[in-house]
Amino acid sequence: MSEKLSVLPYKGTRDFYPEEMRLRNWFFGVIREVLERSAFEEYGGPMLESLDLYAAKSGEELAMKQTYNFVDRGDRRLAIRPEMTPTVARMVAGKMNELNFPLKWFSFPNMYRYEAPQRGRLREFWQLNVDVFGCDGFEADLEVVSSAIKLLQAFGADESMFQVKLNNRRFFNDVIAAVTGLDGEGAKAVSKVVDRKNKVPYEVYKKDLTALGLSDEQIAKLDSLYTMGVEEATALCPDSVGANELRSLFELLKKTGLEKYCVFDFGIVRGLDYYTGTVFEVFDLSPENNRAMFGGGRYDNLVGLFVKNAKISGVGYGMGDVTLENFLRTHALIPEELRRGAKVLVTRFSDVPYEAYLKLVDDLQQAGVVASLFLGEKKFGKQLEYAVKENYTHVVVMGGDEYARGVLKLKTLATREERELSLADALSLLKA
Amino acid sequence: MSEKLSVLPYKGTRDFYPEEMRLRNWFFGVIREVLERSAFEEYGGPMLESLDLYAAKSGEELAMKQTYNFVDRGDRRLAIRPEMTPTVARMVAGKMNELNFPLKWFSFPNMYRYEAPQRGRLREFWQLNVDVFGCDGFEADLEVVSSAIKLLQAFGADESMFQVKLNNRRFFNDVIAAVTGLDGEGAKAVSKVVDRKNKVPYEVYKKDLTALGLSDEQIAKLDSLYTMGVEEATALCPDSVGANELRSLFELLKKTGLEKYCVFDFGIVRGLDYYTGTVFEVFDLSPENNRAMFGGGRYDNLVGLFVKNAKISGVGYGMGDVTLENFLRTHALIPEELRRGAKVLVTRFSDVPYEAYLKLVDDLQQAGVVASLFLGEKKFGKQLEYAVKENYTHVVVMGGDEYARGVLKLKTLATREERELSLADALSLLKA
Repeated sequence: MSEKLSVLPYKGTRDFYPEEMRLRNWFFGVIREVLERSAFEEYGGPMLESLDLYAAKSGEELAMKQTYNFVDRGDRRLAIRPEMTPTVARMVAGKMNELNFPLKWFSFPNMYRYEAPQRGRLREFWQLNVDVFGCDGFEADLEVVSSAIKLLQAFGADESMFQVKLNNRRFFNDVIAAVTGLDGEGAKAVSKVVDRKNKVPYEVYKKDLTALGLSDEQIAKLDSLYTMGVEEATALCPDSVGANELRSLFELLKKTGLEKYCVFDFGIVRGLDYYTGTVFEVFDLSPENNRAMFGGGRYDNLVGLFVKNAKISGVGYGMGDVTLENFLRTHALIPEELRRGAKVLVTRFSDVPYEAYLKLVDDLQQAGVVASLFLGEKKFGKQLEYAVKENYTHVVVMGGDEYARGVLKLKTLATREERELSLADALSLLKA
Repeated sequence: MSEKLSVLPYKGTRDFYPEEMRLRNWFFGVIREVLERSAFEEYGGPMLESLDLYAAKSGEELAMKQTYNFVDRGDRRLAIRPEMTPTVARMVAGKMNELNFPLKWFSFPNMYRYEAPQRGRLREFWQLNVDVFGCDGFEADLEVVSSAIKLLQAFGADESMFQVKLNNRRFFNDVIAAVTGLDGEGAKAVSKVVDRKNKVPYEVYKKDLTALGLSDEQIAKLDSLYTMGVEEATALCPDSVGANELRSLFELLKKTGLEKYCVFDFGIVRGLDYYTGTVFEVFDLSPENNRAMFGGGRYDNLVGLFVKNAKISGVGYGMGDVTLENFLRTHALIPEELRRGAKVLVTRFSDVPYEAYLKLVDDLQQAGVVASLFLGEKKFGKQLEYAVKENYTHVVVMGGDEYARGVLKLKTLATREERELSLADALSLLKA
């Protein structure tokens, strides 16, 4: 090939050089710690799945359009996963009789969506998925909403930075029925209009509702709900099961001190049809970024796609890495130094046997200190420059003179302080 | 859809239920700790790359055959990565002028190869990639070989379980030239035959060499090399640069105590043409599994595919997760319990306010203990059964009576021992 290959990654994907990788690993680390402490267990699945999985959940057209899909040599229609829910539903269905419910599961897979890249949306991204399977009660809803709040808290976010807007699809349907008399497909059509409300001018929203047969009075009644608190709103349909679910959820959020992060919002519907109970969206409160970061809710029968008459409920949410990074950057929540502890470069001089350096590096590593020998032969100044650029915290100097006397010089790069020490003293200093 | 979807993952891929995921995470954790302590830095790249990357390295035909590839809507030929080397070469080329060499990099990506699944070979697998870029000397070769040994040591493997077989391509070519007079394409053809030696009957191997013009005497001379030690072998071409590289590598392996894991083997060539110096393969020594687990070596110009006249050398290796798992299982090196520390299920009774349980779980978690409340309402026996099946180590019992008295019962599942304690005492017990 005479023409050179491009050094750029494929459109909408990212290279993770060590600096970016440290950030991604930090995200994963914080998230994993919070979730594992709550006894959530991590799972994983394949990057390629049958296209039928996505066609069954979202329709053939959307599945074909939004995924990278192709046919393999055995004529199987495959897709690179655009989301994790169908995979986890397949896995739960596959071991239904062996698994112990309720399951508390999470995963942080990469996935691909075939769409035009834009701020916050890339073609390849990582998405945290948190789900509770097999618990029909409010306990699972509370667990899932709390975990989302705890995650953001663990990153240092507080109630001035984000807000969880909650609603309940069952309650929503009951209100629509009470106000408009519509149910089934009619209520679903109304929910689609409400879901789009904040993305279109008010006139368009109103026109769409009118087209569905709603009177001005009915529309006004719905509109009044957007500003109501949970007590006022649920009082409109006191016998609704969804209203009860909402009320008990808010009552417990209050008792556990999480209410300050939460607000009832009748406008939260979540577009997807499969939600059946609690729905929520987490909003970034910063003025320049104000929008839903992620969301989730209760869905009751995904396992049914795989196993006849099976019914295992789920509650969960998904959060993308790009969204999380934007949020943390906006609120200055990413620490300047993501790694802690000493990182030591042992510099090399030609008048000391190479194996003496190898031994020194090994001693440092055995003591738990991150350490490396400078690889190759360069002047001391160049080795020092390398240490600074590669974020080493310390440099060890052991030339022929120090080697003969059984000492070394330890240079702290931040302060440029240099001390002559024995190896043992250097080790205790570095470990502290 | 009336027909139900299959619950099986796509052929040659795996589902990672929490149990399998714990194992994968354990692999990653051990590996990451060893490499990070040696100041290797992690990087990552996209799952999709231009097909041209693989075609340029391995040829169009092989790239088409071995990868999952397709054309996107913008007529770009894409492949799901079958290996990481082209990606990392692209990344290094892309920031050549900003990066500080030598780089010590590693990654543990998943990748896909389109081949018939068999033992140790799946279509989707994870592969550790460790490389040093930008150091032409023996220091990098030693660093990379040592890191492979240290990794296996960290998993508890010793010299009775694995062996590193080393050779040098430059030395190999010099020997072939000295023995046969062949160089360039001729030497390359011989190397292919030697590479296949242990996979075919001796007669086939000999016939292939004869076909390349080698006399019986020349073949006998080559054959004698397979049993030689490094001194004897390198003495045959004392002026070879490759011989010198080999000798200094072995000298340092001796001085650092790693020689017991290593042996010179003239038969180690590594099939790929891009290797230019040190080559090595790590063998499983167990009788039932005796074969090369993984390998690597020095390659000198992958960055040249991207940048004209660029030359950045690399030394590295790749190790697959399936291979590693087979090795660790064969030698019984996988601990029975992969997670440590207490994992506590707080059981729930209807005569205690729910928020009291939430508070208790929160207190446990805040103290760093992995804890979960049983989600839902079940009889105590069922909750206990759940705890046992989900590998909880302890169960906390706080019924109405305990709640009223401000105590709890802590049940250790392994011993079935039960103690009544204050929360504070339970916490100190669980943290110890």
